[in-house]
Order: sequence, then C-alpha cells, then structure tokens
Amino acid sequence: MIHESAKIGNNVSFGENVVVEENVTIGDDVIIGHNVIIKEDTVIGNQVHIHDQTVLGKIPGSNRKMARKPSLHLPQLVLSDGITVGSNCVLYRGAHLKKGVFIGDLASIRENVSIGEDSIVGRNAMVENNTTVGERVTIQTGSYITADMVIEDEVFIGPCFSSSNDKYMGMGNFKLQGPIIKKGAKIGNNATLLPAIVIGENSIVGAGAVVTKDVPPQETVVGNPIQPIAKK
Amino acid sequence: MIHESAKIGNNVSFGENVVVEENVTIGDDVIIGHNVIIKEDTVIGNQVHIHDQTVLGKIPGSNRKMARKPSLHLPQLVLSDGITVGSNCVLYRGAHLKKGVFIGDLASIRENVSIGEDSIVGRNAMVENNTTVGERVTIQTGSYITADMVIEDEVFIGPCFSSSNDKYMGMGNFKLQGPIIKKGAKIGNNATLLPAIVIGENSIVGAGAVVTKDVPPQETVVGNPIQPIAKK
Amino acid sequence: MIHESAKIGNNVSFGENVVVEENVTIGDDVIIGHNVIIKEDTVIGNQVHIHDQTVLGKIPGSNRKMARKPSLHLPQLVLSDGITVGSNCVLYRGAHLKKGVFIGDLASIRENVSIGEDSIVGRNAMVENNTTVGERVTIQTGSYITADMVIEDEVFIGPCFSSSNDKYMGMGNFKLQGPIIKKGAKIGNNATLLPAIVIGENSIVGAGAVVTKDVPPQETVVGNPIQPIAKK
Repeated sequence: MIHESAKIGNNVSFGENVVVEENVTIGDDVIIGHNVIIKEDTVIGNQVHIHDQTVLGKIPGSNRKMARKPSLHLPQLVLSDGITVGSNCVLYRGAHLKKGVFIGDLASIRENVSIGEDSIVGRNAMVENNTTVGERVTIQTGSYITADMVIEDEVFIGPCFSSSNDKYMGMGNFKLQGPIIKKGAKIGNNATLLPAIVIGENSIVGAGAVVTKDVPPQETVVGNPIQPIAKK
Repeated sequence: MIHESAKIGNNVSFGENVVVEENVTIGDDVIIGHNVIIKEDTVIGNQVHIHDQTVLGKIPGSNRKMARKPSLHLPQLVLSDGITVGSNCVLYRGAHLKKGVFIGDLASIRENVSIGEDSIVGRNAMVENNTTVGERVTIQTGSYITADMVIEDEVFIGPCFSSSNDKYMGMGNFKLQGPIIKKGAKIGNNATLLPAIVIGENSIVGAGAVVTKDVPPQETVVGNPIQPIAKK
Repeated sequence: MIHESAKIGNNVSFGENVVVEENVTIGDDVIIGHNVIIKEDTVIGNQVHIHDQTVLGKIPGSNRKMARKPSLHLPQLVLSDGITVGSNCVLYRGAHLKKGVFIGDLASIRENVSIGEDSIVGRNAMVENNTTVGERVTIQTGSYITADMVIEDEVFIGPCFSSSNDKYMGMGNFKLQGPIIKKGAKIGNNATLLPAIVIGENSIVGAGAVVTKDVPPQETVVGNPIQPIAKK
C-alpha cells in the first residue's frame, strides 16, 4: 500500500507487502525490501537500501509509570544518501542519520538521535533518545547506548557495551545525563559505564571493565571498579 | 486476513496485512499496526495499542536437546486494558499482562509469565517462562529476566541486566530457580545475578556488580564478587 | 508471492503474506509462518518449522567504514531436516544449520556459520560470520557469539555471554580471531571473553567473569580478571 501523497524518485524498487504512509519522500536509486513499513513524513535520500521487515518513522509512546513523556512535536525521520538499514529494525521519528551510515539488523534508534557520516550501528544495538553519535564511529553488535549520551568522532565501542543515564535509578532527583565518550576512545566488549562518566580522548577501556569515575585522555583502564594499567 | 470467528469491539483500527487467527477477542478503542499477527485464542482488552510487525500468542517449541519441554495446555495470551506493545515483539500464549503495562520494541515474553499493572518492559528485553513481575516495576532496555524468577512491586532494573536459573548449567541436578528481587530494590545496569539469589527490600545493587550471595534488605552492594559499600 | 521457480515438497503449509524468491527448495512436511521471507536459493529440508516474520537467506552488506567486506560468492542458506526457527529471526545466506537445530525468536546468524546437530541458539542471540558451533551445544538467550570463533560439542553458554575477536579494536593490526571453547566447557551468564582466548575441555567459567587469559582443561575460574577457584 503506497499512499498517493508519496514523492518517489527514479529507479526505486519495492518488495512485497510494503506500506508507505502519508507524505513520505524517497530519492533516486533506492531499494525497499519486503514487508517494510515507512510511516508518515519520513524522508529517504538517494542510494539508500532498507532491508526486509523494517519499520521507519515510529512515534514514541509511554505509560503512567514513565518519568519522561515523549516529545509531541518531533521532526520527521531523515535518512541521508547512501544509508543501509538492516532487517527487522525499528527507527523512530525525529532521528537523523547522516550520509553513509550503516544500521545492522534488529537494531533500534530512538527520537532526537543524530548519527554522523559513515558510522556503524551493529545488529541488535539500541540507541536511546537525545543521543549524539559522531562520524566514523563503530558501535558493535548488541551494544546499549543510553539516552542523553555524547559519542564523538572515531570512537570504537565493542559488542555488548552497557551504559546508563540515571544515577538514582528512577528516584527522580538527578538530571539525566549519559556518558560522554571523547574522540578516538575505544571501549572493550561488555564494559559498563555509569551515568555522566567522561572517557577522555584516545583512552582505552578494557573488556568487562566497570567505569565508576572519569578516565583521563590517553589512559588505559581495566577491572571492576576500573584501575589504570601500569605503564611499562 | 481476519478470521470470521474473531470477536471485535467498537472503534478498532487495523493496519495493512494484519493476520487475526481463530477465536481472537479484541475490545473497544484498539489500534492494531501493520503486519501484526494475532494468533488463535488471544484476548485483547480496551484501549490497547499493538505496534507494527508484532506477533501475539505464539506457542512455544523445543528440540531434542532441551531439558524442559514446553507446556502443552497453555491458557490464552491475555492483554488487559490500556496496554501498549511495541514493534517487532514476540509475546507467547499463556502470558498475562495487567492493566497499563508497556512493552518496548523487539521484546519477547514467554508463557506462564504475569506482569503487574503499569509495569514497563524495555525494548529488546527478554522475559522467560514461569516468571512473575509485580506492579509499577521498571525493566530497562536489553535486560534478561530468566525463568522461574520473582520480581516484586516497584523494583527498578537498569539496562542490560543478566540473570540465570540453573546453578549447574544444564547438568540437570538442580531445581531451576531464578533470583527473587524484593519490593523496591534497585539493580544497576549490566549487573549479574546468580540462580536463586535473594535481593532484599529496597537494596541497591551497583552497575556491573556480580551478585554471588543474597543481599540483605536496605543494603548497597558493588563489585565482582559483591561487597557492601561502607556506611558513612 | 511464491516465485514459480520454487521446488516445494509434499505437505507444506504457508501462512499469510509469505514471500518465496527465485530458486528456493523446500522439503516435505514443512510449516512456514505468516509474513516469512525466503530469499533466493535457500534450501529447506523436511520437517522444518519457520515461525512468523522471519527472514531467511539475507545477503550481507557493508559501508565505507567497515574493515572487512562481505564475501561476494556465498553458497545458499541450508536448513537441514527437523529444524525450528523462531519468529522475527534474520538468517544469512551461506549459513548451514544441521539436523534438529533450534533457533529462538529474534536471533540472527551470519554468513559462513555452521551449527551442529541438535544445538540450540537462544532467543535474541547473535552469531557472527565464520564461526563454527559443534553438536548438542546450548547458547542461551541474548548471547553474543563473535566472528571467527570455534565452539566444540556439548558446550553450554549461559545467557548474555559476550565475546570479541579484535584485540586492537579496529586498529587493523591483529588477525581477527574469536575465542575457542573446547568440548564440554560451561560458561556462566554475562561472562566476557577476550579475543583468541582458549577455554579448555570441561572447564567452568563463572557468571560475570572476565576471561583475560586461557583457561586450562577441567578448571573453574571466576572474577574480574579471572582467578582459579581454590580446590577443596
């Protein structure tokens, strides 16, 4: 079902059972897989490939228990030129993916997220709302990127990374702030970052480390809680 | 394809390509997204919103290697009034979600699970069979709730939480028992709980902690293995 | 939409909105759920059950930032007799699942992966490319099996397991090598393995352990970093 209001470029191929809602824009040379759902107002650039079963442009919801209500007036989801989105993904309205971004299967990206050029979000990774990801960043499979987080250019995050943004875990007396990972830092697999932690430029956090305090630039830390590795 | 045996209330909207199997009941003021699959006997209350691509009422399967065979005679999946279920979820027959529950995208809930009023199950969270979740509980994104677990009211579980229920890891000589988390306890992100651990009322488990023994009420523990935090 | 080139056996049932692309082969007594997508050249044996919303035979993609480009000439996806694949899964072209394998919902298996007879890959587990899994292996829910990994027969991997294959995290100067887990070893939930680590036969790695060096056969290790448990 392609709504009659859709603006569709040249050389666009659609799989079976695709749904395109009101006021969608699609550029040239785009491939849309089977069972893909493109919700209202979504903007897709040129040379984009959306794989099967993916949902684009979801509007956030909430319930009575949730502290933060979703924004009511989100801009549209924008996918710039040259992007690939995997199968069975859920991307929200109000996200902006820049040129050449690659999103793996079963990933989800929330509202008010920006992802910089050529960055990678691995399969099954979750990126929460209000987070900024720089250029040429790698976020590997299964990583959890909390809300209100900043990831600068050329950061590498290994698989199964975990982060959080709420120091008092739902008690409501802390400004929500995710970690800040500075340019070129590298984080090992299954590392844990506490809220508002700053990881300095080009620092290295070892696999399985639990980061309870800020890490200075150029430093390597490991353990639970983290300790610096002795310099040789 | 909506089977002719379906009982459908007033003001129900269906997206494209929806499948409703035999003997399904749907209340009033319900929104069913695109490509949603509602399997036989499922019961949906009033003011429920099911997002795109979700499967409701799946029957569990098994293979030769599995220790525990799934129940053959499960009651139907019941979604009470005011529930939201995200996109690309898989909810099993024999689960019961109470009023106002919110289930995030890409989550899955197995058979014989009960989830109390107004509780939240985050995106990509997995809840295994025979587990009971209380009221006003928050289970954040990517958490793993093992089978045979008890989570009491107002518990907060941060993202990427991990638990297990089999002390001997498939050797078959331990009664399967997941952790028991008492009322109001808070568990930090990427914490690990061993089988049958009890977390006392209002206790706090730090991010990345590995909980190898019971935690008394009102206590705060961190580390691998856990240690109490010195009282100031 | 079932392409006319498909070779379909006896007693095959198809759900609603199924897509079968060119040159697919399906055996006898097969159940295909609703909204399933079977991509070109996929081979499915007898007594196979594919649950709803699953994608079979996906071709890998990449972007400019990715170090390793996907193989261009992959063999077809092969699902042998007696296999069950859950809902909302994504299985790649070039994987080979042997008889009796069980794949949970929301799981994904990449190209050039072999999974031995009767093994289980839990819900939401991710298996990366070029990895070999033996027979009667259990990989529990939410586990991350990195690329270039070897898992021998009868290994047990608890939920939320994490592994990696790149010692220098994207710097490009290390031969990619995932861990090697020898026959009968057991790995606790949320354990972390570094690249190229060898876990010896019948060894036990505790829940939440961070494995920074090889583990000899028959040994039990816990902690971050791992220490042997004192023998009693």
